[in-house]
Amino acid sequence: MLGIGIDIGGTNTKLVVVNRDGKLLAQDRFKTEPSKGAAHFIRVLAGHVDTFKRDYGRQLVSIGIGAAGDVDPERGVLRFAANLGWGNVNIVKPLGKLTGLPCVMENDANMAAWGAYELECKRKNDDILTLTLGTGIGSGMILDGKLYHGATGSAGEAGHLKLVPDGRQCNCGGKGCFEAYCGSYAIMRRARELIKNEAAFVRRYASPGHERFNTICLTNAAADGHAAARKVWAETGHYLGLGLAGLILVLNPGRVVLTGGVSKAREWFMPAMKKVLSAQQFKTPFSKVKIAVSDNSDLGSHGAALFGLERALK
Amino acid sequence: MLGIGIDIGGTNTKLVVVNRDGKLLAQDRFKTEPSKGAAHFIRVLAGHVDTFKRDYGRQLVSIGIGAAGDVDPERGVLRFAANLGWGNVNIVKPLGKLTGLPCVMENDANMAAWGAYELECKRKNDDILTLTLGTGIGSGMILDGKLYHGATGSAGEAGHLKLVPDGRQCNCGGKGCFEAYCGSYAIMRRARELIKNEAAFVRRYASPGHERFNTICLTNAAADGHAAARKVWAETGHYLGLGLAGLILVLNPGRVVLTGGVSKAREWFMPAMKKVLSAQQFKTPFSKVKIAVSDNSDLGSHGAALFGLERALK
Repeated sequence: MLGIGIDIGGTNTKLVVVNRDGKLLAQDRFKTEPSKGAAHFIRVLAGHVDTFKRDYGRQLVSIGIGAAGDVDPERGVLRFAANLGWGNVNIVKPLGKLTGLPCVMENDANMAAWGAYELECKRKNDDILTLTLGTGIGSGMILDGKLYHGATGSAGEAGHLKLVPDGRQCNCGGKGCFEAYCGSYAIMRRARELIKNEAAFVRRYASPGHERFNTICLTNAAADGHAAARKVWAETGHYLGLGLAGLILVLNPGRVVLTGGVSKAREWFMPAMKKVLSAQQFKTPFSKVKIAVSDNSDLGSHGAALFGLERALK
Repeated sequence: MLGIGIDIGGTNTKLVVVNRDGKLLAQDRFKTEPSKGAAHFIRVLAGHVDTFKRDYGRQLVSIGIGAAGDVDPERGVLRFAANLGWGNVNIVKPLGKLTGLPCVMENDANMAAWGAYELECKRKNDDILTLTLGTGIGSGMILDGKLYHGATGSAGEAGHLKLVPDGRQCNCGGKGCFEAYCGSYAIMRRARELIKNEAAFVRRYASPGHERFNTICLTNAAADGHAAARKVWAETGHYLGLGLAGLILVLNPGRVVLTGGVSKAREWFMPAMKKVLSAQQFKTPFSKVKIAVSDNSDLGSHGAALFGLERALK
């Protein structure tokens, strides 16, 4: 039995076909093009699913979707997605109708959390917190071995936890949010304050083919001993520690999985992060939690596929 | 079928007998006297249970315990209790042996949360956060209709969420914790800064028989229009809003229940608290959550009794 996983992002939509062990059998992607409207998007998406159906036929039993935005999992509706510009779009029902497959949708961070639970932890831990560290910060929770999505499907909006009252401006319009310190846009904003000659920095530290002032560049620079780059990562680690400390106090997870582009700089932010965590007064939850980094950039789509299978076969 | 509920506090230990609807049939209490040691305490406790057994015999099917401290619910061990001065005390096993009844133990805030779930919400909401606002702040969560206690039983240590980096000194040794702003000791510390003539204030505002500078006094003063008292409660409400906002973002509860002594000042802290909550940028979880105050001062012991019954009859 196989499941389709779909990751709807602002730029691209990714599709995968996996078996119950999470083994990838096929993949596909297309430009999301949100400006053409949701109805058009759903038709295009169903077309890609049909291609899989021609190849795998009745082996395909489910579709799981992760979408970047505020998802109502009960109704299968994308309530709001800032980077798509859509509001209140019913995706699950029309896609189910067009494809004939049972379909579930969750916030993309929740699907990454399910992916981490199945693929990174092999279901060995019951209580797992996953933080997706990208432009923004998302989080998903597996609690008592089940995906927890809260009363409205919005649980885990950790990116907007306030770390500093009236602190740095966040993209959400608020101030002092976790992602206003540790989202990649915020990290690079801070880097701009400390690194004056941006063009020279990019020439020297960018990875070939990615000549931009971004977190990869900043990680390369830190590896090369660049003092300002290391300072930015250490500050990021400090704030990651503050945010994570709050989440660990509340949720008491057995395991934390960090994923997303920013997590690739682990070597440079981890020491400062762990320093904050080990300075906490209430020791029990901090002494027991294991913190791991996942380099699997497909946790979201794979997690969505596995979650769809889990639901369909229950 | 009846259950015994036990609330172990630093000063007193309370016992109740309730039926499955939470109706109180009997109660008892004794001085905890932690200095006499845990073994002595357990023998005294078993003696009080025996008195109930003489009255109710085989109708009694379970014991549920809530203890103020760091509880390991798996092993039935009180790992640490600051106000008892005990470390790593096994309570469940010896008490079960002495009384012949199945016995479970949880953190007291978890038991208050279970009490709120059963008695205040009648199990109508699946996702409930309970904040116990007393000297410190505790929290308990019912998620997906089940008590959530995390990987080590420590979930819900919301009192030590950091609201302000390097902020006010907390009793835990850390700084800027939620309860360093909203625990009653912190509220009265702030009141002392603003109210200079403490003795005159107590003479005028204390409730008869409670002639102390405490939150009751401060609530009476606010009701009488005392400007500084109102200012203290408004500040408290502001910080309660900050702490609660973080918890709502992460947990997305359908209902929040505030309980404990400080919650009696709801009229004076609620407006500032709600102002913070309604100013949040990400609306969905905040627009759906219902916030209620419970004046039931026995949620902990009743919740423990009902939780013990729930476990024993499962």
